[in-house]
Amino acid sequence: MKLAHYGEDRLIAELTRTLASDASVRTGIGDDCAVIGGRRDKTWLLLKTDCVVEGIHFLPDAAPRRVGWKALARAISDIAAMGGLPRHALVTLAASPETPVGRLKGIYAGLKKAADWFNVRIVGGETSASPGPLFISIALTGSVEAARCVTRSGGRAGDLLFVTGRLGGSIGGRHLDFVPRVAEARWLVRNFRIRAMMDLSDGLGADLPRLARASGTGYEISEPEIPCTKGATLRQAIADGEDYELLFAIAPRDAAALESMWRNKYPKLPLTRIGRLNQKSKIKNQKSDGFDHFAQPR
Amino acid sequence: MKLAHYGEDRLIAELTRTLASDASVRTGIGDDCAVIGGRRDKTWLLLKTDCVVEGIHFLPDAAPRRVGWKALARAISDIAAMGGLPRHALVTLAASPETPVGRLKGIYAGLKKAADWFNVRIVGGETSASPGPLFISIALTGSVEAARCVTRSGGRAGDLLFVTGRLGGSIGGRHLDFVPRVAEARWLVRNFRIRAMMDLSDGLGADLPRLARASGTGYEISEPEIPCTKGATLRQAIADGEDYELLFAIAPRDAAALESMWRNKYPKLPLTRIGRLNQKSKIKNQKSDGFDHFAQPR
Repeated sequence: MKLAHYGEDRLIAELTRTLASDASVRTGIGDDCAVIGGRRDKTWLLLKTDCVVEGIHFLPDAAPRRVGWKALARAISDIAAMGGLPRHALVTLAASPETPVGRLKGIYAGLKKAADWFNVRIVGGETSASPGPLFISIALTGSVEAARCVTRSGGRAGDLLFVTGRLGGSIGGRHLDFVPRVAEARWLVRNFRIRAMMDLSDGLGADLPRLARASGTGYEISEPEIPCTKGATLRQAIADGEDYELLFAIAPRDAAALESMWRNKYPKLPLTRIGRLNQKSKIKNQKSDGFDHFAQPR
Repeated sequence: MKLAHYGEDRLIAELTRTLASDASVRTGIGDDCAVIGGRRDKTWLLLKTDCVVEGIHFLPDAAPRRVGWKALARAISDIAAMGGLPRHALVTLAASPETPVGRLKGIYAGLKKAADWFNVRIVGGETSASPGPLFISIALTGSVEAARCVTRSGGRAGDLLFVTGRLGGSIGGRHLDFVPRVAEARWLVRNFRIRAMMDLSDGLGADLPRLARASGTGYEISEPEIPCTKGATLRQAIADGEDYELLFAIAPRDAAALESMWRNKYPKLPLTRIGRLNQKSKIKNQKSDGFDHFAQPR
């Protein structure tokens, strides 16, 4: 069977099914980051790798600086989704020998801009020849206090679901320029008990079922509540992906304080309650257009 | 100017020239691994990223298990070169939608074999669509006692240069099956003060000048002493690359003990003294065939 007929989640599950783990691994494959550390350590190490490929994640004529920014920002967004701070990055570039060096310098300018912005140190840079499209792979470490580390799997039935910002339409340009929600995620984990969190990279419709599946819950969404980017349809908000906003679950008793404190702290950034986790394995959505955008959890 | 006209070392130097560092970075770009840790920490974190690209590092018809082994083993070899132990790996696979899933499973079987062999935990696995060749990027962490960490830059004029194993001809198959010298490197750093070390990935002729440059020394090589793989010419031993043997520098006073203890410990693996570091910036080789195989240090 060809890769095209496999879902990414199924593929990863099958590829990694027999891999060994040990006591140093707090969270392995299947979350935004791997979490490494002993049970009694106060600080844990976060590990993330991510790649962007020309023709898939950016077009050949995209400004190199924006491509570099995006490559690093995507990985930073995953560190943020665990409640952590990004630390050290390594960059692998594979490029055709025909690639103008100026283009690579532009990409590094964008990487450096993102690194400086988020206080990340780029400590390794490999290059490789490639007969194919330009390929940028980022490996990023982060750190998080053990008590503040948030995975996808801590949600419970009844928890309320929130998203930051607005969703959809990122292809208009935001997918190259987004600012990972590091500050917002740190504020959240410092001030609240966030039960489960992830960043929205594949779109709410693909990502929310992953969070629910990891938490062992179902979910219900009020589609009319989903905050759409100006000009984007609901369907785009659910399916476009590359929003890099935070999706998280919190106990209902904390919701009022959260909403009030958030408005004070981030008056310009919407925080929207879009639904809740529930005990049902069957999806129950308030559909606004009769189309089920959400992937069925397994 | 196109990438093809730039050397990799020059490119990396120019791309990374303006990157910031900080007190957490013991060794950054330019060594086999990045070294992270505080000055007083007893254990340091090693970080390495490396990629293999179809058509460059392996042919499309190479056995997938061997490709997977190679992808991880290359990064493990870099951890070994610092005197460290490999710990946690993340894998990024980019593949065309036409790729048979069985091929990816074969690659993972090879990754898992290498991981199990070296007690590495694979804690992250990303996949991405790609319009180009199969691409495997590995991010690997390692750990090393601060007192045993060996960089490329600690060599001094007068140090003797040794290599493990035999060089050249890896394209015959060894480039897919080599066993990184983790055990040997650990034995070396436990028993001796190794001044500088690296693994030979691009060939002695390209790699030795890097070690000398990092150490601020020149070098002299006795080419007749270079241990060639059976059937390989001297030129192949110097230029082929992908040997993944260790090259290291040690004070002359330690050499006799090293050679004697090595023969006892590793009777089947050659350890060969091939030359020395010197103060000269000008290369002085005993050429065996009149051809200068070694890149001029800058």
